[in-house]
Amino acid sequence: MGREVVKMVLEDPELQLVAAIGNTSTGAVDAGSLVGKPDTGVIVLSNLADALSVSRPDVLVDFTNPKSAMPNTETALAYGVRPVIGTTGFTPEQIVELDKICRDKGIGGLIAPNFSIGAILMMKFSAMAAKYFPHVEIIEYHGDQKLDAPSGTSIKTAELISQARQELRQGNPNEEEVIEGARGGYYDGFRIHSVRLPGVFAQQEVVFGAFGQTLKIRHDSFDRAGYMPGVNTAIKKIMSVTGMVYGFEHFLD
Amino acid sequence: MGREVVKMVLEDPELQLVAAIGNTSTGAVDAGSLVGKPDTGVIVLSNLADALSVSRPDVLVDFTNPKSAMPNTETALAYGVRPVIGTTGFTPEQIVELDKICRDKGIGGLIAPNFSIGAILMMKFSAMAAKYFPHVEIIEYHGDQKLDAPSGTSIKTAELISQARQELRQGNPNEEEVIEGARGGYYDGFRIHSVRLPGVFAQQEVVFGAFGQTLKIRHDSFDRAGYMPGVNTAIKKIMSVTGMVYGFEHFLD
Amino acid sequence: MGREVVKMVLEDPELQLVAAIGNTSTGAVDAGSLVGKPDTGVIVLSNLADALSVSRPDVLVDFTNPKSAMPNTETALAYGVRPVIGTTGFTPEQIVELDKICRDKGIGGLIAPNFSIGAILMMKFSAMAAKYFPHVEIIEYHGDQKLDAPSGTSIKTAELISQARQELRQGNPNEEEVIEGARGGYYDGFRIHSVRLPGVFAQQEVVFGAFGQTLKIRHDSFDRAGYMPGVNTAIKKIMSVTGMVYGFEHFLD
Amino acid sequence: MGREVVKMVLEDPELQLVAAIGNTSTGAVDAGSLVGKPDTGVIVLSNLADALSVSRPDVLVDFTNPKSAMPNTETALAYGVRPVIGTTGFTPEQIVELDKICRDKGIGGLIAPNFSIGAILMMKFSAMAAKYFPHVEIIEYHGDQKLDAPSGTSIKTAELISQARQELRQGNPNEEEVIEGARGGYYDGFRIHSVRLPGVFAQQEVVFGAFGQTLKIRHDSFDRAGYMPGVNTAIKKIMSVTGMVYGFEHFLD
Repeated sequence: MGREVVKMVLEDPELQLVAAIGNTSTGAVDAGSLVGKPDTGVIVLSNLADALSVSRPDVLVDFTNPKSAMPNTETALAYGVRPVIGTTGFTPEQIVELDKICRDKGIGGLIAPNFSIGAILMMKFSAMAAKYFPHVEIIEYHGDQKLDAPSGTSIKTAELISQARQELRQGNPNEEEVIEGARGGYYDGFRIHSVRLPGVFAQQEVVFGAFGQTLKIRHDSFDRAGYMPGVNTAIKKIMSVTGMVYGFEHFLD
Repeated sequence: MGREVVKMVLEDPELQLVAAIGNTSTGAVDAGSLVGKPDTGVIVLSNLADALSVSRPDVLVDFTNPKSAMPNTETALAYGVRPVIGTTGFTPEQIVELDKICRDKGIGGLIAPNFSIGAILMMKFSAMAAKYFPHVEIIEYHGDQKLDAPSGTSIKTAELISQARQELRQGNPNEEEVIEGARGGYYDGFRIHSVRLPGVFAQQEVVFGAFGQTLKIRHDSFDRAGYMPGVNTAIKKIMSVTGMVYGFEHFLD
Repeated sequence: MGREVVKMVLEDPELQLVAAIGNTSTGAVDAGSLVGKPDTGVIVLSNLADALSVSRPDVLVDFTNPKSAMPNTETALAYGVRPVIGTTGFTPEQIVELDKICRDKGIGGLIAPNFSIGAILMMKFSAMAAKYFPHVEIIEYHGDQKLDAPSGTSIKTAELISQARQELRQGNPNEEEVIEGARGGYYDGFRIHSVRLPGVFAQQEVVFGAFGQTLKIRHDSFDRAGYMPGVNTAIKKIMSVTGMVYGFEHFLD
Repeated sequence: MGREVVKMVLEDPELQLVAAIGNTSTGAVDAGSLVGKPDTGVIVLSNLADALSVSRPDVLVDFTNPKSAMPNTETALAYGVRPVIGTTGFTPEQIVELDKICRDKGIGGLIAPNFSIGAILMMKFSAMAAKYFPHVEIIEYHGDQKLDAPSGTSIKTAELISQARQELRQGNPNEEEVIEGARGGYYDGFRIHSVRLPGVFAQQEVVFGAFGQTLKIRHDSFDRAGYMPGVNTAIKKIMSVTGMVYGFEHFLD
């Protein structure tokens, strides 16, 4: 993901790459060459604080992992740099604490488990439709090596649907599974189905059924790079925000 | 459609059938028997004014045709009956005039080319998505005997998308049609495709494409009866409305 | 289903309706009037043997239930009438026995759990594709009041896929279900997912995944009447067959 | 495509890379380093005849362009090397001529416009289904910068459907296009629709409609690399073939 961010920044004339953090064990590398582009003069560094101290950027983009993300965010804020963080795993207490630091510094920050505008719209529309169509099932598709089922996005979608729709336990109460698990995973009255196949990156379809009709909302993601328009939007919007925002959906109106 | 309405009203304990208008040339028929239900005591009549005068209903539901709909609406209003009209073809001037009569009488009315909640949500979501995903095409499917292409619903959807998105002429400017018409019908920078096949009632898919992802919103309608939940909602909501409303979407929040 | 058959026969000038069996407790009814058509002169009878004895048809179409189908088939054969049977529940021994009777009489018969040409092609193509694409999952959709999951058709499809493909246990061996059942029902190394929603009649999608691509075969059935072209084909083909055929797929080349 | 082939060969222990042809203007490059793999000892050369003369391979894979493919194929055959060619543009006369050379040399060759097993199955199944379901339309999706519409694959599919189905001019004879082109491109009685959107690589859906049902066959290709399993199969099968084969479908049974 880091490479995709570097590429996206280099390709947008409104943005400027001033530093890049990565593994430097193989010697000095120019950030441009890492992504198949001409040299940029920005040498990849290993220490975040040093890099921020020297380059003084407006924004830090971090796609590391839950363990590194909290200290990285604190380091960024210590240097007055706005963090745009693409990992999960922050506790509500941590977010409150980071929000306080942001406000003290008078700057903004964003923590977003999902930067895909398409996925966020899919979730939003699903919640809206659930108000009128309480009968719903979710089918999500991922690569066949994914470990967890159902996906985080499908559980988040299910949560939003649950909040929006009238309470309902769907299906025939006397339904019987001839093969165990055929009816999928149960979530608050409805079902989530997880398909795992090679050739698939990340897809989800939310199907609503009512007398004589079905309504389907489907998002197909073919590539990590699909997140970049969202990261780009976030980098620009974060400049006019104060406080720590949780969830990229707040940057869409 | 008239029969579907009769059936729906008879099946809802909150509603009461007090009159039915239809072809009476084959003799007296009970409205119940027309729809395979027990007799209701409501005999189908041929003259609307007579029927309204005798039965004094709260609401008239009309699924006739553009030519009859205007006089029928005027007759209903003359008797203080709220019209719920499922035909197209009203001019803006006629709607203004009917709105005035409604307000004079202190009652409400609805003219709705489409009562399908699913179709209306599809249009609404498409307009919302077009703001973020300006690249879009519409594919609509109807039975193979349909005369016009593209469908009224797809043109309405295209209109709403056009209003919501940034101006954009999609596609390669040097694109060439090896077979004329392959790229579909042109509407304000994007394309509409009309598929006509037996076995299909009415379906539409709106496809948005962006780097690395697609977002699809699809509505499949299998049956006229799919409109009935919308008509049912309209009959109930119309009681607390004043003025003539155009478009069922105004009855959804 | 019986009514659909009557309708189909009346609408095909190559076929002639000579008898109809049904519930006669409400008095004499013409078979035409049962299906909203003009009178045919064929009065619905309650006793199959009597009806066959009087009308001497070429073919009997039976869409009753597993319990009645066996005696009805025997009765038909006793009168030299070719049975076209649309129910399940025959044992292999019964089929062998019926085949023997057919051959003794020099006539043909058909027992077919599924008359949908589309469903049969879907199964056939799925088995063919499984040879090249061993990674597969089945998603089937039925109305929300259906009792059993997965559907008979999906199990039959799974069987055919299993026979055609190389042995393979799909997915990550360390996969974990966060919500039990999310990964669907297990069948010989792959998964079947059963969606149950109002507005759906019977749909099935077989999805094959391989590096960089997916192949999907989908059959959507909107209506019982979709089986009638298959029944029509069967009635005509049965005239030139000897012996009892099991499965409508043998009538497609 | 050349790089994908190099990668695929290096990853299959049954195959051995012995030469690679490419642009050498930037100095000597190891074929492994071109595809992000360790050095292989195979230096990319610019002259095909020299490379074949030195390395004496069993098979040449060529994904160049219509202009270079014919001389390259002739050069390969002159050295007794089996050509596997992934370009279009050969005339029937050229293929006859190449077949003769192959037979004289006692070796095999393959010219294949499409190496995607999924696409070939889609075409095959479509032709099979058209026999039973004569009502059909094709919808194909490609990236928004593609120049020609409809795609070569959709035209090839249309051809195969035409040969298989009974003659039929679909649709209402009085059909009217409110927006010109909405009904798509006309091909022998049916229609092809070309959708062009960013985020799409190559997708095609063939939809058959009949009373009460639809059957859909869909192939989604996300990546050039999806062709490689087909190229791999071809390299292995070509060793036991004599003569020039046109079309990869002949290598699938």
